[in-house]
Amino acid sequence: MPDAAAPDTPTLSVSTAPVVPTAGVTAVLRPLPSGAELTGGFWADRIAANGTAIPLGRARLDEAGNIENLRIAGGAAEGEALGPVFADSDVYKWLEALAWEYGRTGDPALLTQLDEVTAIVAAAQRPDGYLNSVVELRRRPRYDGLGWSHELYCAGHLMQAAVAAARATGRRELLGVAERLAAHLAGTFGPGGRPEVDGHPVVEMALVELYRLTGTRRHLDLAAYFVTARGHGHATPGDADPTYFSDRVPVRDADDVEGHAVRAVYLGAGATDVAVETGDEELLAAVRRQFAAMVRRKQYVTGGVGSRWEGEAFGDPYELPTDRAYAETCAAIGLVQWAWRLLLATGDPAYADQVEHTLYNAVLPGVSLAGTEYFYANPLQLRTGARADDNRSPAHGRRGWYDCACCPPNVMRTLASLPSQLATTTADGLQVQLYAPAVLRADVGGELAVELATAYPWDGRVEVTVHAAPPRDVEVALRVPAWAQGATLDGRAVPAGDYARVRRTFAVGDRLVLELPTPARLLVADDRVDSVRGCVAIARGPLVYAAEQPDQADGAAVDDLRVDPLAPIIATHRPGLLGGVTVLETRGGVVRRRDGRTPYRRYARPHPPVEPVDLTLVPYYAWANRGPRPMRVWLPTM
Amino acid sequence: MPDAAAPDTPTLSVSTAPVVPTAGVTAVLRPLPSGAELTGGFWADRIAANGTAIPLGRARLDEAGNIENLRIAGGAAEGEALGPVFADSDVYKWLEALAWEYGRTGDPALLTQLDEVTAIVAAAQRPDGYLNSVVELRRRPRYDGLGWSHELYCAGHLMQAAVAAARATGRRELLGVAERLAAHLAGTFGPGGRPEVDGHPVVEMALVELYRLTGTRRHLDLAAYFVTARGHGHATPGDADPTYFSDRVPVRDADDVEGHAVRAVYLGAGATDVAVETGDEELLAAVRRQFAAMVRRKQYVTGGVGSRWEGEAFGDPYELPTDRAYAETCAAIGLVQWAWRLLLATGDPAYADQVEHTLYNAVLPGVSLAGTEYFYANPLQLRTGARADDNRSPAHGRRGWYDCACCPPNVMRTLASLPSQLATTTADGLQVQLYAPAVLRADVGGELAVELATAYPWDGRVEVTVHAAPPRDVEVALRVPAWAQGATLDGRAVPAGDYARVRRTFAVGDRLVLELPTPARLLVADDRVDSVRGCVAIARGPLVYAAEQPDQADGAAVDDLRVDPLAPIIATHRPGLLGGVTVLETRGGVVRRRDGRTPYRRYARPHPPVEPVDLTLVPYYAWANRGPRPMRVWLPTM
Repeated sequence: MPDAAAPDTPTLSVSTAPVVPTAGVTAVLRPLPSGAELTGGFWADRIAANGTAIPLGRARLDEAGNIENLRIAGGAAEGEALGPVFADSDVYKWLEALAWEYGRTGDPALLTQLDEVTAIVAAAQRPDGYLNSVVELRRRPRYDGLGWSHELYCAGHLMQAAVAAARATGRRELLGVAERLAAHLAGTFGPGGRPEVDGHPVVEMALVELYRLTGTRRHLDLAAYFVTARGHGHATPGDADPTYFSDRVPVRDADDVEGHAVRAVYLGAGATDVAVETGDEELLAAVRRQFAAMVRRKQYVTGGVGSRWEGEAFGDPYELPTDRAYAETCAAIGLVQWAWRLLLATGDPAYADQVEHTLYNAVLPGVSLAGTEYFYANPLQLRTGARADDNRSPAHGRRGWYDCACCPPNVMRTLASLPSQLATTTADGLQVQLYAPAVLRADVGGELAVELATAYPWDGRVEVTVHAAPPRDVEVALRVPAWAQGATLDGRAVPAGDYARVRRTFAVGDRLVLELPTPARLLVADDRVDSVRGCVAIARGPLVYAAEQPDQADGAAVDDLRVDPLAPIIATHRPGLLGGVTVLETRGGVVRRRDGRTPYRRYARPHPPVEPVDLTLVPYYAWANRGPRPMRVWLPTM
Repeated sequence: MPDAAAPDTPTLSVSTAPVVPTAGVTAVLRPLPSGAELTGGFWADRIAANGTAIPLGRARLDEAGNIENLRIAGGAAEGEALGPVFADSDVYKWLEALAWEYGRTGDPALLTQLDEVTAIVAAAQRPDGYLNSVVELRRRPRYDGLGWSHELYCAGHLMQAAVAAARATGRRELLGVAERLAAHLAGTFGPGGRPEVDGHPVVEMALVELYRLTGTRRHLDLAAYFVTARGHGHATPGDADPTYFSDRVPVRDADDVEGHAVRAVYLGAGATDVAVETGDEELLAAVRRQFAAMVRRKQYVTGGVGSRWEGEAFGDPYELPTDRAYAETCAAIGLVQWAWRLLLATGDPAYADQVEHTLYNAVLPGVSLAGTEYFYANPLQLRTGARADDNRSPAHGRRGWYDCACCPPNVMRTLASLPSQLATTTADGLQVQLYAPAVLRADVGGELAVELATAYPWDGRVEVTVHAAPPRDVEVALRVPAWAQGATLDGRAVPAGDYARVRRTFAVGDRLVLELPTPARLLVADDRVDSVRGCVAIARGPLVYAAEQPDQADGAAVDDLRVDPLAPIIATHRPGLLGGVTVLETRGGVVRRRDGRTPYRRYARPHPPVEPVDLTLVPYYAWANRGPRPMRVWLPTM
């Protein structure tokens, strides 16, 4: 926490992280008390770009009317509500980003903005604690049609912003608003009150975090109620199908994820929080089962989820089209939130692998290298001739904002708080989860501080130097991703998909060297994934690669490329390309064809000829920074 | 035309067909003056089943409120309008089916129904000719928001029903209603009037047919206006994207089909009618170009079109998923309407191939063997574990009716009028377009009548016996489908994809024998069709086949089947199966696998083992008549 905020605000939390399990619960891992300090490298660049976007976010929220809605509701202006019913939530997500960014940079201009908009929000709150500018301005009855009204969804985002403000800046005004609203909700919903649940989860994890920060038990109780009530039709409006709302099967009984993807993963995250705080092993087992089912049959190779445009939904098992992948940026963010909570709850490094993989390959593609434009949908293929017939269409390229602007401020808060996910701690150890140049400080009954030096993700070498350690055995654990076969720690082989652990009495200046081999890897998919049958995807280290049109040799359309699985793949770092990326080059083929009268022909007829060609691939996250040009993650083999 | 209706009603038309180009226009082919009489066989069975559904349609329209809406609008009842804004159109499509069915059967009960509902419709018409029960009852301003209001769409279906009633029953009351409405439209829209165009085409082809029947030129002029005005934003509501409404590019300039599939193909059909009646060669060339583009890159192997659930739309080129194929039944019907009009306009047998192929494999799958249940969407694959989370979801199986009930009465009118598409005529010839046991009568300056005997589509032998012929050279042309390589006529080789023509002076009792070879054919797709890369589809004669779960050997899940492209395929007719079908049996494989933790694995790892298994395939149209079980049209090769 920066000193600037310290004098007049007591520390309310032991951590500046978004997720801080209560002391004494069974969570296996905990966030570092003071987060982590990035000192450079890949993520520092991305987070710095995000920092330039946050002030622009304010301008967008002003232009789109979101902040004006709150001003009008607070009596400071006059007019009609603009935008969707959940317009307030975008303000709250942006406030959350502002708070984490202030926590990282200490920039006083951010604090000024936080205070100003907090005052606007506070003024819009009703004396009884109710708060929702759009419902008020449109004179809708409160909580009427909660399946679509998003009132608790907005409330949840407010609470998350308030927690961030308290933890990262020490400011408590927004926390006061959130607590009054939470008290209002506690007096309105749950046993003895209204039975409904918001159609869009998020309030569950928000209430748990508010409880974690304040210790007010009824926040946790209400979160537990909302998790338990779901699956009984309380979230589904009218005679709609409950699948969309994750309301068909109770969370405790569900074996899979289904319906609207963002709703489903936010619910999974909130249920995980409830399970951890209430010690509910059955509920924890249920959400682990659902997460595993998602990973097994419904996740893209990029980590993205929610394959259907129709209903922004999970599809049937193996329904993972590349061209029409929806893979909403917000769904990837929610997946990371869920995986992170499961990691803290269980200590299973497979969840950390999910956090890393999804951040690099499903969240980061959602934002431009400049940090200021966003994809809503993240396809794994853009065809030649793809038409942009929807404002979310990737054929438009990334856009600065959307009418339904859930994704941009969600990216902002995710990147601003990302340093909190670099490492975790236990009573006597430090676990490095993500690799980046950074200083990490844990309290293991005395400070255990290490510095990481690495060119990750371009290079798999990570040097860990001990800056401080208590005079007794403690453990430093370094995550070895499942892809890192042949990894070594100080020259000793360590298994992939687990932590490489060193337990000893460290001395200042001690060094550990982790080597994660990063040869390019060819991946194939289960043949039930129709869209990529006969194809390979290429990954290197934590990154999934893509063939993008601007990098291909003359005349070789991305649609027509072929990979030779036996050809060597050369990795070359190009500092001047796309902010500095390692490209992959290989010898493959290009189909030379003439279109027939139909796409179908007799089996016996020869396939069109394939001519040799050089292929160049770039990291998927960096695509569409040279215009929305044809791109493919999966390429057919020769 | 049955005698029952003849005494008191003059013949208004030379034909009982839905599409009758005006004498003197440049259409190459014309419908038979009196349609064709089916004497048995495949289509007769399907049309008989459809006949049982038509009375049920009345019950559905009563239950859903469609007819009551008209009653209320006519002052015969009180209440609010029920259903979607286009509710009237379902009544009109059903009336059209009723008329064609009466024309076929002469069943007086059908005429009684026609008269009764005609009176209800007539009473709902306003004195100035306006007619739309839902707009009236909901007190909406007329033609306000024509992008969505469907007022001209409903008008178009009324006109088509009125034309059918006049041609098939001689009843003119509905024609009077239609003409008054058409006069009202002529006084409201077009040059000097309102510039808007209905968001959903159909009125274009309806106005042309009304012109063809009545000779009233302004109907044609207004149709031509609506065709020409499209593509200039006149059909697009508010700031919506015009793609959905086929309103982005003028019809004359467009090179492809796009947007909502039913809208696009109905527009193509209407524009073809306008081109034929106005002698507009440029417009005809444009719609031929668009049809060819659709066939080349946007049509399923079944003939179905409109691959996207989102917006019920054409996708990008080669975007043809099997599991999420929307392939709406109505879009296939509209495609047949368009292809039939292009066939009449040009005489190109490729359009007749499209009519036949799409009827068998994209329209017919939309209705159950019983004739009374309907698919909205027609996927080419239903996976194990597919969830029904939408009322249109194929995982429900076919349903008796839908909230948006466009498809059921569209199937009814299509099947009831299907005999009119068996053959065409020129000044001195008869062209057989579809094969079925039937008597066909053409006027070639004297009667030319033939009888067809065939077990088509199960067997490719067609015997043509001359029943009447003028005493001079005339031509009998028999379509040889493009798939029928090796076809012979009276033992002489005839080219596939053209007509086998015999020109001579026929004598009564002359016989021609066409032999269309029907070995099973393995088809592969352009590799840009992601969903079927590495797969084959199997067709025989005009039918596309599918593997459906109930026919497979123990334990062989359809999801896991493999085809051996070199194995022989045995065709066996099974009279007791699915109403009598020829099944295909072959030796293939089944994958025995254990699911991994994710669907992705290193390229180098071995594929799961494949064990030999017998595969049985049934015609795709017959699937889901034993419950909605897993099914695949495309199967991976071994």
